[in-house]
Amino acid sequence: MTTAVLYAPRDLRIEQRPVPAPSEGEVLVRILSVGVCGSDVHYYEHGRIGDFIVRSPLVLGHESSGQIVEVGKGVSSSRVGERVAIEPGEPCGRCDQCRTGRYNLCPNIRFHGTPPVDGTLSEFVAVKSELAYTVPDEISDNAAALLEPLSVGIWANRKAGTEAGTSLLIAGAGPVGLVTTMVARAVGATRIAVSDVNRNRLSAAMERGATEIAVPGSDDIAGEFDAFIDCSGSSAAIDAGVRLVRPAGSVVLVGMGADELRLPLAVVQQRELLITGTFRYANTWPTAIALAATGRVSLDELVTGEYGLADTEQALTAGRDPHSVKAVVRPALS
Amino acid sequence: MTTAVLYAPRDLRIEQRPVPAPSEGEVLVRILSVGVCGSDVHYYEHGRIGDFIVRSPLVLGHESSGQIVEVGKGVSSSRVGERVAIEPGEPCGRCDQCRTGRYNLCPNIRFHGTPPVDGTLSEFVAVKSELAYTVPDEISDNAAALLEPLSVGIWANRKAGTEAGTSLLIAGAGPVGLVTTMVARAVGATRIAVSDVNRNRLSAAMERGATEIAVPGSDDIAGEFDAFIDCSGSSAAIDAGVRLVRPAGSVVLVGMGADELRLPLAVVQQRELLITGTFRYANTWPTAIALAATGRVSLDELVTGEYGLADTEQALTAGRDPHSVKAVVRPALS
Amino acid sequence: MTTAVLYAPRDLRIEQRPVPAPSEGEVLVRILSVGVCGSDVHYYEHGRIGDFIVRSPLVLGHESSGQIVEVGKGVSSSRVGERVAIEPGEPCGRCDQCRTGRYNLCPNIRFHGTPPVDGTLSEFVAVKSELAYTVPDEISDNAAALLEPLSVGIWANRKAGTEAGTSLLIAGAGPVGLVTTMVARAVGATRIAVSDVNRNRLSAAMERGATEIAVPGSDDIAGEFDAFIDCSGSSAAIDAGVRLVRPAGSVVLVGMGADELRLPLAVVQQRELLITGTFRYANTWPTAIALAATGRVSLDELVTGEYGLADTEQALTAGRDPHSVKAVVRPALS
Amino acid sequence: MTTAVLYAPRDLRIEQRPVPAPSEGEVLVRILSVGVCGSDVHYYEHGRIGDFIVRSPLVLGHESSGQIVEVGKGVSSSRVGERVAIEPGEPCGRCDQCRTGRYNLCPNIRFHGTPPVDGTLSEFVAVKSELAYTVPDEISDNAAALLEPLSVGIWANRKAGTEAGTSLLIAGAGPVGLVTTMVARAVGATRIAVSDVNRNRLSAAMERGATEIAVPGSDDIAGEFDAFIDCSGSSAAIDAGVRLVRPAGSVVLVGMGADELRLPLAVVQQRELLITGTFRYANTWPTAIALAATGRVSLDELVTGEYGLADTEQALTAGRDPHSVKAVVRPALS
Repeated sequence: MTTAVLYAPRDLRIEQRPVPAPSEGEVLVRILSVGVCGSDVHYYEHGRIGDFIVRSPLVLGHESSGQIVEVGKGVSSSRVGERVAIEPGEPCGRCDQCRTGRYNLCPNIRFHGTPPVDGTLSEFVAVKSELAYTVPDEISDNAAALLEPLSVGIWANRKAGTEAGTSLLIAGAGPVGLVTTMVARAVGATRIAVSDVNRNRLSAAMERGATEIAVPGSDDIAGEFDAFIDCSGSSAAIDAGVRLVRPAGSVVLVGMGADELRLPLAVVQQRELLITGTFRYANTWPTAIALAATGRVSLDELVTGEYGLADTEQALTAGRDPHSVKAVVRPALS
Repeated sequence: MTTAVLYAPRDLRIEQRPVPAPSEGEVLVRILSVGVCGSDVHYYEHGRIGDFIVRSPLVLGHESSGQIVEVGKGVSSSRVGERVAIEPGEPCGRCDQCRTGRYNLCPNIRFHGTPPVDGTLSEFVAVKSELAYTVPDEISDNAAALLEPLSVGIWANRKAGTEAGTSLLIAGAGPVGLVTTMVARAVGATRIAVSDVNRNRLSAAMERGATEIAVPGSDDIAGEFDAFIDCSGSSAAIDAGVRLVRPAGSVVLVGMGADELRLPLAVVQQRELLITGTFRYANTWPTAIALAATGRVSLDELVTGEYGLADTEQALTAGRDPHSVKAVVRPALS
Repeated sequence: MTTAVLYAPRDLRIEQRPVPAPSEGEVLVRILSVGVCGSDVHYYEHGRIGDFIVRSPLVLGHESSGQIVEVGKGVSSSRVGERVAIEPGEPCGRCDQCRTGRYNLCPNIRFHGTPPVDGTLSEFVAVKSELAYTVPDEISDNAAALLEPLSVGIWANRKAGTEAGTSLLIAGAGPVGLVTTMVARAVGATRIAVSDVNRNRLSAAMERGATEIAVPGSDDIAGEFDAFIDCSGSSAAIDAGVRLVRPAGSVVLVGMGADELRLPLAVVQQRELLITGTFRYANTWPTAIALAATGRVSLDELVTGEYGLADTEQALTAGRDPHSVKAVVRPALS
Repeated sequence: MTTAVLYAPRDLRIEQRPVPAPSEGEVLVRILSVGVCGSDVHYYEHGRIGDFIVRSPLVLGHESSGQIVEVGKGVSSSRVGERVAIEPGEPCGRCDQCRTGRYNLCPNIRFHGTPPVDGTLSEFVAVKSELAYTVPDEISDNAAALLEPLSVGIWANRKAGTEAGTSLLIAGAGPVGLVTTMVARAVGATRIAVSDVNRNRLSAAMERGATEIAVPGSDDIAGEFDAFIDCSGSSAAIDAGVRLVRPAGSVVLVGMGADELRLPLAVVQQRELLITGTFRYANTWPTAIALAATGRVSLDELVTGEYGLADTEQALTAGRDPHSVKAVVRPALS
């Protein structure tokens, strides 16, 4: 089978590898669509993200959909033929974090496309059966792959406590900011203010549910918000956002980048703000499928380019175009 | 001013009374619309609801909107002219329940139209300034009145934990079942099954967000639900509904009527169901206003008849028509 | 090895079986102490509990401690020699309930001594390594076994929301009522009223933290409680208890027995009571170990009789003595 | 009556003022004991705390007990003679924060001894009846006053989620650190590590429930904690503490002082830490009374000096002695 392997920064090679055999409890999935994430791009460009370093050849990709073509021992053969969305993290299921439902914090998790675990930019992958979620016809192949970034937006909104009538400030209108906006809209937030330095992105946010937009530093966004979700990773955006949250409101830090988080202590205390960060997500796929299948969110609109596996490098660099939102690799496109 | 006063079962008299003067902290509101609730009808028909007995002449009505025409001491005169929705319960603000945010359970609460506190079926009422919520132009006079039943639906969904992707079973498609359906839809529930004996009501539920409907006793509704909200008060509906809730799911009892709640103990234990009842609501008006103002719920469609104050008795008996959903009294008529 | 096998009601046979070999991820445990639970007695007497029927020979026992004597593949050999408390349920780790941290509700759970899964009334058992919790010297062999019933009490108090200053009503002062009392005391409950028909048990409750005791039907217990935990399974006790809970208080149903739960609907609604049942427990062993090791609860005092494996039948019938609280089987005896 | 009035930094004058008359809903309290808080000392030394500035003569004091000697209109005369602990904040009861149970965040709150509201360092004060909590004989006059700092410790532990088996790190062993330690012990925390630069204070912490102590910068405290409560206000202590919290653990910032809170963003995100600050407390007096009355916490031991009203200045400077923990002013002392 064909696969795209990262050997070193900007050294991505298209290789032939044997099709894996599904082990006990696994299914073999023919990949239909893989979304390109900022972290894939970062590994491609720099060969590392923080302490995660590409030390040996690595297959990237963790936003994936496909079709089950074979099952391992212990999996019903009736699953063959199902179209599935793949949750990319396989937790151990035995540690304290797993047993308390926070499997995203499992220290033993194996996550697609994070060194040293291979991802899904291949024609076939074998995954645990329970991580291959059946999707209905209402969800396209691309949308099924994008349930992964949607999960990031679901998790952010859960942490923020977004609910009916919530007023929400979102900093950053990249793909994560956009899915966060879409989910906020779907769960009943009625004021959704989005800030970004890029006006193209702000337009995209307006189309996906924002009720007001602004460039940072303007005074266009005023008043108090129930919650602030940072999807920018910018220290300045975080500092500005925190000051706009009402007493007992929430601050959720999704965007990476800043080394140090600097917060005004008196504001945190006098308003008793609740501040947290997110690391991936847990228990989001059923929600993501329900939202996408019922049309509450429209993921296909996020796709701004489709590439074959052989063109993976182009997909990884597509984001340099300021109008690009989400590139997907479709192995069937040769 | 003109007011409608209940003297005894089916003895409702239109009287003239002096316009009240707003006390300190109060506003005087000219009433624009009052929705008729099942409890108003019950008092009109029977003169009591449980231990609440109409012992002296009582003004009914607690779903109300109006316009501020005068303010008492301590209230800014800038409020004069504002169109407002009125929260009908005035809690003491000092007891343990009030101080912990559960003011609906305040033992000292004074609630419009519940003996011995007069309601709003009058030309004017004086209410605490903080219970008169300003509404924007997007909310009509009738819709502003119906923020009260909407609050019942918001509270039911909060108790049920309805969120994005929730599957919900609702028994009863009267006005309360309908607003519960509308709110569930607005907060992201993706499966909303509604049951009722009345097919007219089931059609109304489909129009307001139900994804499937059924008459009780049919096997049309199957599978497991995250939550079940009973808006019927029927013992049979409750028993059937409880059995359809998944492990760790919620049961919320809104409908009144049954004396005794009978539940299968083994089911409650083996599934660790969370069961609760609702009593009015707390902290719902801001949410209700946000949902109505942004078009997430459409309250005007619930109104099936408008009456003048002189025709209050007709409004109270309008529900005998099986196509009636919500009658409103508008003092300005006639 | 020697094991005690239930063939049919009151037909318990002491047999020799081969010592099991630990599979991958398992440890082999030499059993040191096994507490006798009411459910063991029920299987012994009746051969079934509800839908769980002893259809083939079954080893009972699920309150167990022991010492690791061998490890399977993938388990560090450094574990050999550790004294351990055994959590008796092995969940699948893959279903929705497991992944959300509610593994006690896992439909695939394999639970010691529940048909068709053998329990621990044997000289040796093989269990998953993560279910064998290391215990410090401060916890005796018997106390380590009794971390299981302690877990029932921890879970009941978690569901009840017991915290500093909580006033709690507990119906039933059998072993479950007693551990529930002990935990309530340890987590800061300051009023703990216990009711039981048996005055011996009430005395035991007073020794373990109850602040007041009463026989059912007396008026000795008055006032409002923050929470009510039923450990009796008696319909009358449940009905009486529910009426003593304050608005927004909790009702937790632990005791089994009653078929139908009958509750006053108006009370449930007007007080917005939170009612739930418990099924075993989840994530309680670390807490149980911490409480026992630091002396916050004293489990050894619960033991009223020790028996060898050959005398398992005596242990199973020890509860007929009204002074008996907890019998334990110690395979090393005799 | 005699009262102690702060005119300017270090200008405290003992004056005679008329005894206040209780208004409607108020009680008149003869003060029995007033604890000296660090904030009182700060106002005395600097005339301000942040934006709160002493612009006109101010009576300090907000940790208070007394005896009701007279009641205003609407308060039962049966309250006369009751010994009471006084909650020092009078919220408005009408704003969003009040109505949702977070009255400590009420923007209109009037708080004893915070400019421009007079405190309790007087012979008599008039307070709202519901803020004067009856205390039983088991609680001394001094302990009743110290229910206020105890409330700070209760609130900190609530925010931290301290429960049975919790491991807790506390930075700072001044009066707030000590009450936080005492409450943690009372609610079942089993590991309580306390750090402070002052070895006298560390000894005091050991006597009040700490299980281990250390000076900052030592490696004596290791391992992961479920929660970290900072009572020091030291940036270095906060930074060190945050790194010792387990994934999904809590960080509660109680201590004031640092301008800016600097946190390692990657740690906050990868562990999904929950960070918040505290501002006073809400709904703590019933809990505080229950804990003190049942001996779960011993407040009298905190008192290291008693002073008459005339010696208030001595009480305000007593903290300069490193062995001082809590000075109290007792107006009845000459």
